[in-house]
Amino acid sequence: MINMVITAGGTIEDIDEVRKITNTSTGLLGTFLCDEAIMYMEQNEIIDYRIHYIASTTAIKPELDEEALNRVAFYDVTNTDSVLQVILDIFSKQKIDFFIHCMAVSDFTTKHLIPIHTIAEEISNKLHDAPKENWIELIEDIINNPKETINQEKKVSSKTDLILTLKKTSKIISILKEYNKDLFLVGFKLLKNVSEDELIEAASLLEEKDKCDLVLANDLQSIIEGNHIGLLIKNKEVIGRYEGKKNIAKAIIYQMLKGV
Amino acid sequence: MINMVITAGGTIEDIDEVRKITNTSTGLLGTFLCDEAIMYMEQNEIIDYRIHYIASTTAIKPELDEEALNRVAFYDVTNTDSVLQVILDIFSKQKIDFFIHCMAVSDFTTKHLIPIHTIAEEISNKLHDAPKENWIELIEDIINNPKETINQEKKVSSKTDLILTLKKTSKIISILKEYNKDLFLVGFKLLKNVSEDELIEAASLLEEKDKCDLVLANDLQSIIEGNHIGLLIKNKEVIGRYEGKKNIAKAIIYQMLKGV
Repeated sequence: MINMVITAGGTIEDIDEVRKITNTSTGLLGTFLCDEAIMYMEQNEIIDYRIHYIASTTAIKPELDEEALNRVAFYDVTNTDSVLQVILDIFSKQKIDFFIHCMAVSDFTTKHLIPIHTIAEEISNKLHDAPKENWIELIEDIINNPKETINQEKKVSSKTDLILTLKKTSKIISILKEYNKDLFLVGFKLLKNVSEDELIEAASLLEEKDKCDLVLANDLQSIIEGNHIGLLIKNKEVIGRYEGKKNIAKAIIYQMLKGV
Repeated sequence: MINMVITAGGTIEDIDEVRKITNTSTGLLGTFLCDEAIMYMEQNEIIDYRIHYIASTTAIKPELDEEALNRVAFYDVTNTDSVLQVILDIFSKQKIDFFIHCMAVSDFTTKHLIPIHTIAEEISNKLHDAPKENWIELIEDIINNPKETINQEKKVSSKTDLILTLKKTSKIISILKEYNKDLFLVGFKLLKNVSEDELIEAASLLEEKDKCDLVLANDLQSIIEGNHIGLLIKNKEVIGRYEGKKNIAKAIIYQMLKGV
C-alpha cells in the first residue's frame, strides 16, 4: 500500500469572528498534483494506493471520478494549527511514504488586538519605575502579553487605530521527517522578485534544513504574470525547469514516483 | 432612468504580496438583491434602469441572462480605498437614485509591519531623554510612524514575532449623502451575539448618523447557524422580520422601490 499526503491552498488565521488573514494561494497546483498522481498510478497499474488530501476550506478541490474518489481522503483545514493536527492524526494511523507540502502555510498566527492608545499607556506606566536597561525587554513583554486586549470572539468594533500582534508559527515542514525519517518529502520555496541564483540558493537551504528530497522553487512574479515557472531542485542542483502548473505537477509526480 | 448601486462581498486589505485581511462575507445576499431588483423592474414593466454592481474580486457574482446583463454594470474592487474610488467615479457620471450598501467594508486598513524587538528598541531609545509626561503620546507616535518597517511590497519573511498596525478607514456610508442628498440609502448593521434590543438600537443609530432610509439589522450568529434573520428598520422601528437571504433581499427591494 502506497500512502501519499498532498497539502494545498492557503491557511486562514482568524483576526475576529469576521476578519481573517488569508493567502492568495488558490490550491490549483494541488489539484493538478492529485490528478497527476492518480494518472501515474493508473498508467503503472498500481491500484493499492491512498492519497490524503489536506486543503483549506477555501481552496479549489480536485474533481475526481468515482473510482478515484475511493482512493482519495479529503481533510478540511483552516489555520496553521489545524493543519498540524490533521497531519499528526494521519501519521498516527498509517505509515506515509510520500508527502507533497504544497500548501501556503501562514508564517504567523494572530495573537492580540490592542488599541494603540491602550498599549502606549501600559508601556508608559510600566517603564516609570523600571531601570532603563530593562526597558526593551519590558516593552517586548508588554506587547506580547498586554493587560488589555480586544475580545476577538466578538466582531471587533472600530473606534481607534489598533495593533495586531503576529506570532511566528512553528514550521510544519521542519517536523515531518522527525515523525517519519523514511518519508519522501517535496518542499516548496516561493519568493518574490529575486534573481534565479537567489531562488536556487533559498530552495537548496530549505532542502538541506528540512531534509526535503525534492524542492520546487518558484517566483511569485511569474505566478502573477500568468506564466508560472517552476525549478525542480535536487541535491542543490536544478534538475528541471517547467512552465505552467500542469507541467510542474507532472514533473514533481514523475520525479517522486519514478522508482515505485 | 433609474440608477441603482449595490455593493456586495467583503473588502480585501493587503498585508504583503501574498497575505491579505479578508472578510467572511461571500456576497450571496448582494446577488439576491440584484436578482430581486431585476424581477421587480420586470414585474412593473420598468425597462429604463441601470444597476451598478460593486463587488470584491472574491465575491459570488449574480448570474444574469443576456437581457439583464445589458442593464447591470460590474465593478471589481479590492480594498476599502478602491471601493470609495469606484463609488465617486460612478457618482461623477450619473445621478444615483438608490444605493444598497451591503458590502462588508473593512473598518481597518493595514499600515506597517514591524518586528516587535525593533519597535521596542525604538520606543526605549526615544523615551530615554523625553519628559515622562510626553511618553504616551510619543509611544503612540512611534507605533504610528515607526522608523524601521518591513517592506510590504515583498513577501514578508518570518524570523521574529511582528506587530501589524491597523488604521481606521473612513466610513464610506457616512459620505454618500454628502455627495447626493436625494439618494435612497439602505445601510446594514451586523453585530454578533447581542440582544434584539441592542441590535435595533445600533441599527437606529446608524440610520440617524448616516441618514439611511432603511437599515437591515442582523446578527452574525444567525448567519453562522444557517438561518439568516434580518430586521428591517425604518424611523427607528422594526417594519419587518425576515428569515433567509432571499426573503431579506425581496423585502429590501420592495420597501425601497414600492414608490417607483
